[in-house]
This record gives sequence, C-alpha cells and structure tokens, in this order.
Amino acid sequence: MKHIHYLDQEPEKTENDGAKKAVIRHLITEKDGAPNFNMRVVSLEQGGNSPNHSHPWEHEFFVLSGRGIGEVDQREVELKPGDAIYVPPNIQHCIRAIEAMEVI
Amino acid sequence: MKHIHYLDQEPEKTENDGAKKAVIRHLITEKDGAPNFNMRVVSLEQGGNSPNHSHPWEHEFFVLSGRGIGEVDQREVELKPGDAIYVPPNIQHCIRAIEAMEVI
Repeated sequence: MKHIHYLDQEPEKTENDGAKKAVIRHLITEKDGAPNFNMRVVSLEQGGNSPNHSHPWEHEFFVLSGRGIGEVDQREVELKPGDAIYVPPNIQHCIRAIEAMEVI
Repeated sequence: MKHIHYLDQEPEKTENDGAKKAVIRHLITEKDGAPNFNMRVVSLEQGGNSPNHSHPWEHEFFVLSGRGIGEVDQREVELKPGDAIYVPPNIQHCIRAIEAMEVI
C-alpha cells in the first residue's frame, strides 16, 4: 500500500503545456502499480488555468476547494467545492480558477 | 460532460456488505461512459466502517475530511484530510472512522 499526504508530494509546474499559475502533484501513478488511473491534485492560483487540451484517456475531476470554470467541449460550467465532472476521452477541456482552486 | 455536486447524488447504504454507518454516492460510473474508473464519495459516521473486503480492481482513496484508520493487508495507517492511499487489486482493505469521515 502507498500512503501519502498530498502536500508531501513534490509539486510539478505544468506551464510548458499551456497551463498558467498551476502545479500538479502526482499522488498515485503506474509507478505505484496502479494499472488504470492516476490520482493527481492540481493546484491553481487565482487566475490560473490547466492546459486546454485533449487526450485519449478520460478525466474525472472533483473540486476540493475554490471556485472556477470548467470548459469541456466548448461548454462552460461553474465549479465549486464538491463538484465532480467527467471528461470523456479525446474531448477538449480546461479549468480556469476564479479563486485559488484545488482539484483532484 | 457530466457535472454534478456530490450531495445531489442519492446516497446508497452499504450495510449489506459488512459496512456500518456508511453511505456511498456513485458520482461517475460506467453508466456515464467512464471506461476505467468509478468516482464515488464514501461518507462514514463516527464509528462507522467501509466493508472489509477485496476485489480484482484497485482502489485509490483520498481523504476529504475527518479522521480514521485505513487497514490494508492487515497494516493500519492513520488517515487525515489530504491523505491518499493506494490499494492494489485483490488486497483486503477497509476504512474505520474515528471522526465522521468523507473519502473519495
């Protein structure tokens, strides 16, 4: 079993892929033996955004704190703590932080 | 895209499988098209527990709130908000709530 507090995981900048004021912490990955799903926490400063991109794997987001906008396939939704969104494979998506946000 | 607040999802009791004082909310499942991973929130009352069981799929937990004990393969770890644990496939596991807990 792996057991880690998310703040003990080194944050990685994601600016090189179009993200802004954003770091990502990879908590559980294939390196831990997880065959299907990577667990990450994305931390966005106010005004930050995740990359606007798509990829062949799906995303499932849960908002831990803060407020922002989720844009999925050119549709915008307001995000607040406790919200979950599902992004299907190959669908364009990004998150923009109105307040500092943390998303898992 | 599916977009839902977790409290808007009907909670389901899980008492029939050895769980106690526990409900589960299925937020994103294969019914939403998610091929690999189910996103659920488990809410445990103080003194509650998830089932002590194993299954062929892996689990990745993140503690949203509260405190408790995670037991994985007969090893116990203390759980607090922000902790992540990885449970490999076919490994016995359960969570016991010392305080009311929510786990995703």
